[in-house]
Amino acid sequence: MNMHSKTPSATPGTVTTGPIAGSRKIYDAPPDRPDILVPFREIALDPSAQEPPLRVYDTSGPFTDPAVPIDLEAGIAPLRAGWIERRGFAQATPRALRPEDNGFVAADKLVPACPAPQNLRVGTAGQHVTQLEFARAGIVTEEMIYVAHRENLGRAAALEGAEARRADGEDFGAAMPIFVTPEFVRAEIAAGRAIIPANINHPELEPTIIGRNFLVKINANIGNSAVTSSAAEEVEKLVWAIRWGADTVMDLSTGRNIHNIRGWILRNAPVPIGTVPIYQALEKVDGEPEKLTWEIFRDTLIEQAEQGVDYFTIHAGVRLAYVPLTAKRVTGIVSRGGSIMARWCLSHHRESFLYERFDEICDIMRAYDVSFSLGDGLRPGSIADANDAAQFAELETLGELTKIAWAKGCQVMIEGPGHVPMHKIKVNMDKQLAECGEAPFYTLGPLTTDIAPGYDHITSAIGAAMIGWFGTAMLCYVTPKEHLGLPDRDDVKTGVITYRIAAHAADLAKGHPNARLRDDAVSRARFEFRWQDQFNLALDPDTARRFHDQTLPKEAHKVAHFCSMCGPKFCSMRITQDLRAEAERLAGMEEKSSEFLDKGAALYLPAAP
Amino acid sequence: MNMHSKTPSATPGTVTTGPIAGSRKIYDAPPDRPDILVPFREIALDPSAQEPPLRVYDTSGPFTDPAVPIDLEAGIAPLRAGWIERRGFAQATPRALRPEDNGFVAADKLVPACPAPQNLRVGTAGQHVTQLEFARAGIVTEEMIYVAHRENLGRAAALEGAEARRADGEDFGAAMPIFVTPEFVRAEIAAGRAIIPANINHPELEPTIIGRNFLVKINANIGNSAVTSSAAEEVEKLVWAIRWGADTVMDLSTGRNIHNIRGWILRNAPVPIGTVPIYQALEKVDGEPEKLTWEIFRDTLIEQAEQGVDYFTIHAGVRLAYVPLTAKRVTGIVSRGGSIMARWCLSHHRESFLYERFDEICDIMRAYDVSFSLGDGLRPGSIADANDAAQFAELETLGELTKIAWAKGCQVMIEGPGHVPMHKIKVNMDKQLAECGEAPFYTLGPLTTDIAPGYDHITSAIGAAMIGWFGTAMLCYVTPKEHLGLPDRDDVKTGVITYRIAAHAADLAKGHPNARLRDDAVSRARFEFRWQDQFNLALDPDTARRFHDQTLPKEAHKVAHFCSMCGPKFCSMRITQDLRAEAERLAGMEEKSSEFLDKGAALYLPAAP
Repeated sequence: MNMHSKTPSATPGTVTTGPIAGSRKIYDAPPDRPDILVPFREIALDPSAQEPPLRVYDTSGPFTDPAVPIDLEAGIAPLRAGWIERRGFAQATPRALRPEDNGFVAADKLVPACPAPQNLRVGTAGQHVTQLEFARAGIVTEEMIYVAHRENLGRAAALEGAEARRADGEDFGAAMPIFVTPEFVRAEIAAGRAIIPANINHPELEPTIIGRNFLVKINANIGNSAVTSSAAEEVEKLVWAIRWGADTVMDLSTGRNIHNIRGWILRNAPVPIGTVPIYQALEKVDGEPEKLTWEIFRDTLIEQAEQGVDYFTIHAGVRLAYVPLTAKRVTGIVSRGGSIMARWCLSHHRESFLYERFDEICDIMRAYDVSFSLGDGLRPGSIADANDAAQFAELETLGELTKIAWAKGCQVMIEGPGHVPMHKIKVNMDKQLAECGEAPFYTLGPLTTDIAPGYDHITSAIGAAMIGWFGTAMLCYVTPKEHLGLPDRDDVKTGVITYRIAAHAADLAKGHPNARLRDDAVSRARFEFRWQDQFNLALDPDTARRFHDQTLPKEAHKVAHFCSMCGPKFCSMRITQDLRAEAERLAGMEEKSSEFLDKGAALYLPAAP
Repeated sequence: MNMHSKTPSATPGTVTTGPIAGSRKIYDAPPDRPDILVPFREIALDPSAQEPPLRVYDTSGPFTDPAVPIDLEAGIAPLRAGWIERRGFAQATPRALRPEDNGFVAADKLVPACPAPQNLRVGTAGQHVTQLEFARAGIVTEEMIYVAHRENLGRAAALEGAEARRADGEDFGAAMPIFVTPEFVRAEIAAGRAIIPANINHPELEPTIIGRNFLVKINANIGNSAVTSSAAEEVEKLVWAIRWGADTVMDLSTGRNIHNIRGWILRNAPVPIGTVPIYQALEKVDGEPEKLTWEIFRDTLIEQAEQGVDYFTIHAGVRLAYVPLTAKRVTGIVSRGGSIMARWCLSHHRESFLYERFDEICDIMRAYDVSFSLGDGLRPGSIADANDAAQFAELETLGELTKIAWAKGCQVMIEGPGHVPMHKIKVNMDKQLAECGEAPFYTLGPLTTDIAPGYDHITSAIGAAMIGWFGTAMLCYVTPKEHLGLPDRDDVKTGVITYRIAAHAADLAKGHPNARLRDDAVSRARFEFRWQDQFNLALDPDTARRFHDQTLPKEAHKVAHFCSMCGPKFCSMRITQDLRAEAERLAGMEEKSSEFLDKGAALYLPAAP
């Protein structure tokens, strides 16, 4: 990889580019739509493998394609521009920028706006704007075709034998098809079971689908805070997070220059970008929740929707009456948005304006196809508080709000916990499905214990893998710095890789028809001592290679039929390979093996499910 | 911490000593046995907490006690010497050391033997030797009293209110008592459901119990290999692994000096030490499995039993007839012991001598109370091979062997996989319990996907937490280097901490009556911004503190009511704390809150289980 440099220091200038080790970017279109080019990553294998390259899902955008020049000031190519154009949305006059949008930053500290042009659009009442509206009208959008091809990893038809593999899983009522058609995507969106977060002002987006009948997705959070971070860092964090596999990225910035940094992010974001608008609204009122008003919040929604944010976390389920339910908690309210709204409600002794104005919020979000991520402002912040009355009261309200948003034509997903011990995870999923009409669930972990600050990517990967298996559509990553500090570059990568593991483990356990292909490719490479292939097929080839080379640095060891763990004499795989040389004898023995057993043929029963 | 230095380079000279940050070593005896001093670690809390110090389980031995002088040449104090002495075992003449015991190492490269004295004992036919024999005879040993007090964290009686907490879990048929009595321990051992690995020649041992009705334990593997590592490193790895929480340690050495290194380890090991004797036996026949004989193996068992090894992995379930069942696997046989025995069986076309001589193996192990860890030589090495006919055929044989070993008076646990996707984990546990009469299960992970070499501590922590919840008694750690290289010091620590997380998450989910105390203590510290307490209560205080200080290094920030994640204005916990100041108003509101709700009292239902 190398660093791409263009603009000077104040604005984002350098991002990580170049292919991931051992792989190349390819584009592939569905047979009947050669204009819809979907990106994949192809991992080349050693010729001795006699296997075609392995194609994998690729979230990294043009940054990993050496053929695409990267110019952050121009932004990445607006892939969806033509699709959006043909939908005939009205040209809109941008809302005028206000001093508070960038936190009243002093002129000498202002990050300049990203100069990439925007052709601002807004939907009107009489037309289809959101993917949900199109889906309900029976219209298959380009976005739906795109995500179908993407989910199939570019295959034109179901894999041979995949049907059998499909059965090897426990899907808890999910219904993943062997082959994803655009029509299946449409039907899932129409039913509210899946969303494609895709603001009509974010044409740079490579669409992705979030729903439990698709591959499990992961989100990475970035964002500066009042204490630390800069614009350049945030754009690089985006590029870095998607390089390693973040399907969506939330910009949780709370400091100065928040508006302009977001512009740089969006114009260079091939993945859906989510935000929590209440954070910026609070900045506009000097950080004092009491001063928040519907007008300021509404204005912030429009500001961010115009920039192209694809989904908003809206904490409309934090109702006045639920706040007292948190009084006896060990860790109170741990969601920032939740605590802000709780404070507002108590200060004014009024029902939340997010709840009371929910209809109007829907109207704004629909006009740009900003998807809802209904926030769990009362999620538990500790094992002690898991699954309590406050949490489940809010979840019921989120179900009520889901139906309102759907009636307004908006796409919806639901945020979930948090901190939950293993035995209390499944009821979260079951209750979410029941209360929220199968709208996609989007959980933070959950962390399965509180005792390991510094390792909460791991405490939460356990819960994330499980809830992903049970049906959660997207897993929000947790980095090793959770509870302790802001993640740096290494933490972001660790968080993303850890959550790719959790999501993939979930896909495997659900019986996703294509999930095991990569596992099997790694396992074959491992068994055949194709070290380079094993590294390149890994989620993180660089770390795998580095770890191997710490003990056996010589190039010759990359073709060695052993590793440092057991050394040449003790290598079990080598011994087994030697055994394979006696394959014919083995085959003969397989028939005869029951002779040697007391239990006879019982041994040849197929493996239990 | 500091490094203790005594002897020069060739022998182990320096190990890590000193207390873990923020805590001190204490010793506590059960009321009626003041002579049985059980070690714990006490974590001091800030006076503002108004909480007593938190007592935690401590595996680290005398190395964390500044009051105990460490002299590796003398070995650690033989805590059990008096208990063993009173049992009247015969004095034995040690087997003479042979050149092959240390791999025919050249004189100038020989690691000297550990000079710590050993008073060699051997049990005879007419007496009780093993903990199982004592238990069956209704005799409560000192080891049983010790582990009972240890499991209770030194409490003299059940915690108040613990009964209620106990109910908050799903134990899948485990039956953990609120308070562990020595009699309960005895009964569990008598039933074969738990073991105390405790060789009568390992008096330095601080006994621990392994069984599904007790706290979930973890094992760390150390050991040199033919490629790399030294004696000094291995003893330090032991001390380092137990410092961070390894309950047992397996010495998987395969290189030269194997006998003498093992001596240094055992004389300084407060935890049970396990080995795989076939590894050393293979070294004695130049690494050629075909040359293995019963006589060489038998001699190796005696050699290691005399040194004090507490449990042996014996791959007696790899029967000749099962080998062909692995022929079509993606990754064949991945267990070293399994592949060695498979090779032997095929080469001679004979049934395994481990299987045929199992009675004799039992007699040897009983005479020293070496526990069986019946090896899963046919465990799956990939997701593709999970739960196949070979694996389950072997498991059935392990069940058969368990009964034989029990009849011979031996303690037994059963090794389990390996690589298993989430949906196939539970059947492993269920089948193990059924086939092996509830003998403790001891699994390696399992890894839930193959695609993340470099992160297999995480792929496996997911599986380990789940199978621990389902009933596995001990989890064998996997380090980040798995499949790639030998773990170094950092990898060992990462592996141990990761597995402490998995084991604790399992304890919580099982509803272990004491497990949540530490979570709650961390959560209270977190909510009250007691940063130092939060660090010190963590499994790894050093890393937690370092991560925090990367963004907020000043001492003043250790008392700050915010962290770098959200900054002072946005801290949800601070906002919630402010809300608490309005506690009376909240209390009033709680009564009235149903006014604000359509759903009324339904919100006040207790949290779902």
